Amino acid sequence: MNIEQQAAKAKRLRELHSGPRILVLPNAWDVVSARLIEEAGYPAIATTSAGVAAVLGYPDGESISRSEMLEMVARIARVVRVPVTADMEAGYGVTPAEMAETARALVDAGAVGMNLEDTLGEDPHRQVELPLQVEKICAIKETSSKVGVPLVINARTDIYLAAIGPEETRFERTVERLRAYREAGADCLFAPGIRDGETIEKLVKALGAPLNILISPGCPSIAELEKMGVARVSAGSAVMRAALGLVRRVAREMRDPRSYSSLLAEPVTYAEVNRVLSKN
Amino acid sequence: MNIEQQAAKAKRLRELHSGPRILVLPNAWDVVSARLIEEAGYPAIATTSAGVAAVLGYPDGESISRSEMLEMVARIARVVRVPVTADMEAGYGVTPAEMAETARALVDAGAVGMNLEDTLGEDPHRQVELPLQVEKICAIKETSSKVGVPLVINARTDIYLAAIGPEETRFERTVERLRAYREAGADCLFAPGIRDGETIEKLVKALGAPLNILISPGCPSIAELEKMGVARVSAGSAVMRAALGLVRRVAREMRDPRSYSSLLAEPVTYAEVNRVLSKN
Repeated sequence: MNIEQQAAKAKRLRELHSGPRILVLPNAWDVVSARLIEEAGYPAIATTSAGVAAVLGYPDGESISRSEMLEMVARIARVVRVPVTADMEAGYGVTPAEMAETARALVDAGAVGMNLEDTLGEDPHRQVELPLQVEKICAIKETSSKVGVPLVINARTDIYLAAIGPEETRFERTVERLRAYREAGADCLFAPGIRDGETIEKLVKALGAPLNILISPGCPSIAELEKMGVARVSAGSAVMRAALGLVRRVAREMRDPRSYSSLLAEPVTYAEVNRVLSKN
Repeated sequence: MNIEQQAAKAKRLRELHSGPRILVLPNAWDVVSARLIEEAGYPAIATTSAGVAAVLGYPDGESISRSEMLEMVARIARVVRVPVTADMEAGYGVTPAEMAETARALVDAGAVGMNLEDTLGEDPHRQVELPLQVEKICAIKETSSKVGVPLVINARTDIYLAAIGPEETRFERTVERLRAYREAGADCLFAPGIRDGETIEKLVKALGAPLNILISPGCPSIAELEKMGVARVSAGSAVMRAALGLVRRVAREMRDPRSYSSLLAEPVTYAEVNRVLSKN
């Protein structure tokens, strides 16, 4: 993939945020999951940082190194044809200069989009000061544009997810943060932890910009989110955790009552795994 | 883990082949799957080469490099406490000297057991000449013993799996090969592709040594295999392929009818994923 092809993929991913259809992203965590999601007909692949970390043996929250995260992103981007957007946690650094480095490395890895959180990896309850987070977003925008692939930035605030600050001001603080991120150049705004339909509708109106909602138990259906004007809905680590739920069930069944029933119920065949991973 | 601890793990894995209980191994392909299988109570973790390859973007059959395979094995061996045995395909090399290198590197990676096929990665229907395969097994035995961790060798013949040679001589050729592998120092003998109970019973008797059977649709139950005297039963890539079956189902459902039902049905929680990967 040359830089023009990659820029075209960034453009395509950006366009997928302007409706009328909601962009649905069941996040991938390794190459074969990314290929199966692509084969199911999705127009883009988003990664889950928690998922990639778990594959490589780390808990979530920037325990994994930037280079390990980028290596998996690069493996995925080499193999799938659709645009790839990467969950890069808090950007693996603190300063705008470090964000510029991360953005450059992410473009080198073949990705065209990036999630950026506003809490710190090691402490999910401590938020980055708003002016610094704005600078970080600007640095990513500027650097990636300079190298020819303006990354599609999905700027996230964890106020709801990590229950930061007094509950009665959560909505206003979320709006304040996300508006500032939008002005700094974010293409999409991400507010994980909100699952209440009314709040989601209010947020869509207050932002007037593409909004990403995280799927979680009790949140509105994809059709309802689309109707509310949500631009993007993603699964975070949920697809991986669903798959791991089956791994646990299979492992338990094989131990007691020592049966293969879930193991053999609905597999992808060996030939199919090899097919989706073969160069064509 | 120092070399004495690792040698003790090799000893424990070897002992697990001498009954009376059959050793059941639902193979792992990344760190989190290995940890979930360990948590389900298994006394050892076996890897699947097809699974590790798929995570990293390769079809099965030594498309992946030895170092990439070993890196994942090392990540798993660093995190789980039970013995780890690695599927190393045809050993990532051709000569006995290359097998010695692979054995050394595998011990360095923290593994204590190794699967070795007798076909060549690039052509699963071409078998390695018997005398050369015997030399390869001897080289692994000798080198790993010299470095202090005599690897538990699971020597595999693909005569049934790859349908090599005339059908009427398959059983005799399998016995000839596996007996020779045993004499060369293999601890367990692996004949994937056999699923017929009568043939399995006959093979157990003909070998008089630990036998590994691969789970596949239509093969006897774990309880039946144990009764027949089979020492070890493994799943190959089947656990991963079962998990991928759920990934495919989730991805399809989220696309049409755009539902979360399989996604949210039976996940491992986010907290649980982090727990099994946290140092304790």
